[in-house]
Amino acid sequence: MPDAAPELACPAPFAAYDRVVLAHGGGGRAMRSLIERVFVAAFENPWLRDLHDGALLHPPPGPLAFTTDTFTVQPLFFPGGDIGSLAVHGTVNDLAMCGARPLYLSAGFVLEEGLPLADLSRVAASMARAAREAGVNIVTGDTTVVERGHGDGVFINTAGVGAVVARQPITARRVLPGDAVLLSGPVGDHAMAVLALREGLAIQTDLASDSACVAAPVLALLGAGLDLHCLRDPTRGGLAAALNEIAAAAGVAVAIDEPRVPVRPAVADASELLGLDPLHLACEGRFVAFLPASEAPAALDALAPFPVCAGATVIGRVTGPAPRGLVVARGALGGERVLDMLSGEQFPRIC
Amino acid sequence: MPDAAPELACPAPFAAYDRVVLAHGGGGRAMRSLIERVFVAAFENPWLRDLHDGALLHPPPGPLAFTTDTFTVQPLFFPGGDIGSLAVHGTVNDLAMCGARPLYLSAGFVLEEGLPLADLSRVAASMARAAREAGVNIVTGDTTVVERGHGDGVFINTAGVGAVVARQPITARRVLPGDAVLLSGPVGDHAMAVLALREGLAIQTDLASDSACVAAPVLALLGAGLDLHCLRDPTRGGLAAALNEIAAAAGVAVAIDEPRVPVRPAVADASELLGLDPLHLACEGRFVAFLPASEAPAALDALAPFPVCAGATVIGRVTGPAPRGLVVARGALGGERVLDMLSGEQFPRIC
Repeated sequence: MPDAAPELACPAPFAAYDRVVLAHGGGGRAMRSLIERVFVAAFENPWLRDLHDGALLHPPPGPLAFTTDTFTVQPLFFPGGDIGSLAVHGTVNDLAMCGARPLYLSAGFVLEEGLPLADLSRVAASMARAAREAGVNIVTGDTTVVERGHGDGVFINTAGVGAVVARQPITARRVLPGDAVLLSGPVGDHAMAVLALREGLAIQTDLASDSACVAAPVLALLGAGLDLHCLRDPTRGGLAAALNEIAAAAGVAVAIDEPRVPVRPAVADASELLGLDPLHLACEGRFVAFLPASEAPAALDALAPFPVCAGATVIGRVTGPAPRGLVVARGALGGERVLDMLSGEQFPRIC
Repeated sequence: MPDAAPELACPAPFAAYDRVVLAHGGGGRAMRSLIERVFVAAFENPWLRDLHDGALLHPPPGPLAFTTDTFTVQPLFFPGGDIGSLAVHGTVNDLAMCGARPLYLSAGFVLEEGLPLADLSRVAASMARAAREAGVNIVTGDTTVVERGHGDGVFINTAGVGAVVARQPITARRVLPGDAVLLSGPVGDHAMAVLALREGLAIQTDLASDSACVAAPVLALLGAGLDLHCLRDPTRGGLAAALNEIAAAAGVAVAIDEPRVPVRPAVADASELLGLDPLHLACEGRFVAFLPASEAPAALDALAPFPVCAGATVIGRVTGPAPRGLVVARGALGGERVLDMLSGEQFPRIC
């Protein structure tokens, strides 16, 4: 949002358009008008009105977390959210996974010529709402336009800055044999809601994305003095990828009890229909926490007040230092299978 | 760059590909491999190896600047730079325009299926080199892949965090009648180099982008104790847009002496050929500074040691509080014209 000066007289050609045109990215009056009428109006905060090429921040003293994510989900709107709310949740959750309180976001938009401005306004309003709920401000931004056929509606990058409140580093390097693996809620809702919509599945009426901010429950865990070793939100690649990444980085073996992993009936049904494993499906409002097993009951108590963590439960534990990086899932009948991460992509553009 | 764990055993399918495939964005082994072999290898720093969903920063005490920009330039490689160096220069320069020392960058990539991996590696190497020269680290990142025909090679978002060193705010609100308008070097090189390449102009051999980091000279101005009122890099919309934005936001009138604005002969020739005004052409390694006229000579002295500021000169001044927001350009023969900002886009995808 460079140069979002309120004093700027703008004989705005904005009203003349109902779709994004190349002029909206050109650095001239049309771009100024788009930024003021869509973004500054929606994100309403002193930073956007105040400065030019960047925002001036006064974070609290101490270490900061910094993260970025780009969102290209297709379709832009889906049950339970849209690309705007997703772009906020994804980045504030990544900050929370660093043990940080999210403070500030940037937003970079790549708009495709022809995008209806009504859609863009709806996305901006959704971002603003999600940011408000997460307690963050979108303080700086950028808009660029690509020709029709060289983008896809809108892509959104958000970068985030947060204040680290964890007293110990939250990292796979602190994961130890004996740690409990806690999951904050049912898995697979986000990916399945988007997929069902895309594929036109009849079951889609029962499906909605779990896209949500999980910073407050993570801060509650830290506030309760719990010694969180590692946190991860199971987005692309799902729970299986998150556990494999941590097991590999920590150099430990992990076992989960598959029947303890909560999966909603509609997600389970759709997974069966499509031949998919819910453990590989992306979530956008869940996290896994590795912490000393003795602290798991207190952690579940701390999460209890948060609706976004309904269904939180201990799903497994770190079984030992070897086999290094191996994740196994124990079935209801006692059988075990190796829970690998996938090589590639089940579905593109899920987030 | 989530989860860039060096310990991660990766029976990498990377070598099997010479182009980006959808699997490279899927959150599985292929994505991991791409991130490690291209980005972590090029950007080489402790942050990328150390953390998962974000980087842990320890900035100096005091206010920070935060900014973002997305780059979609076409073609990806041009004389004097490429989308990678541009993505670094654009964001570190925006931080400098806030009176800040650039410290950390994030990088978010939208890759189109089919992009040659050799091109991506070349872009990453160029980003790494530009970051090193600017004294910043690329500490966190993200990669997403869109299907062929839904993107265009590679789009790059960079967000940046810098430490504000200016003791007074750098903002149009501090611009005063009587201020000198200083320009750091010739205008129009970047836009004209990209355009000439795109249009296949014969003159293109004499043209090269001015894409460069201007943080060091800005810090030198601040270090010399000069009272910079406002800074702006004339990117999209060129010098004309930068001056109009500041004049409007400050509520003042500005006049420049057009013959004093340096324009290289090749840029002037190509502009004439194409019927373009160099004052509307984007630069990527220039800035304008508004400061008390009495301090202008000291500012030029401070810029003298920097090759990137060769040609720096005072081009005009703030003539008064009215007509509010008006920018005029005085010609060689004494005539005046209103230097407006353009309504829309001369050329899309110039940065």
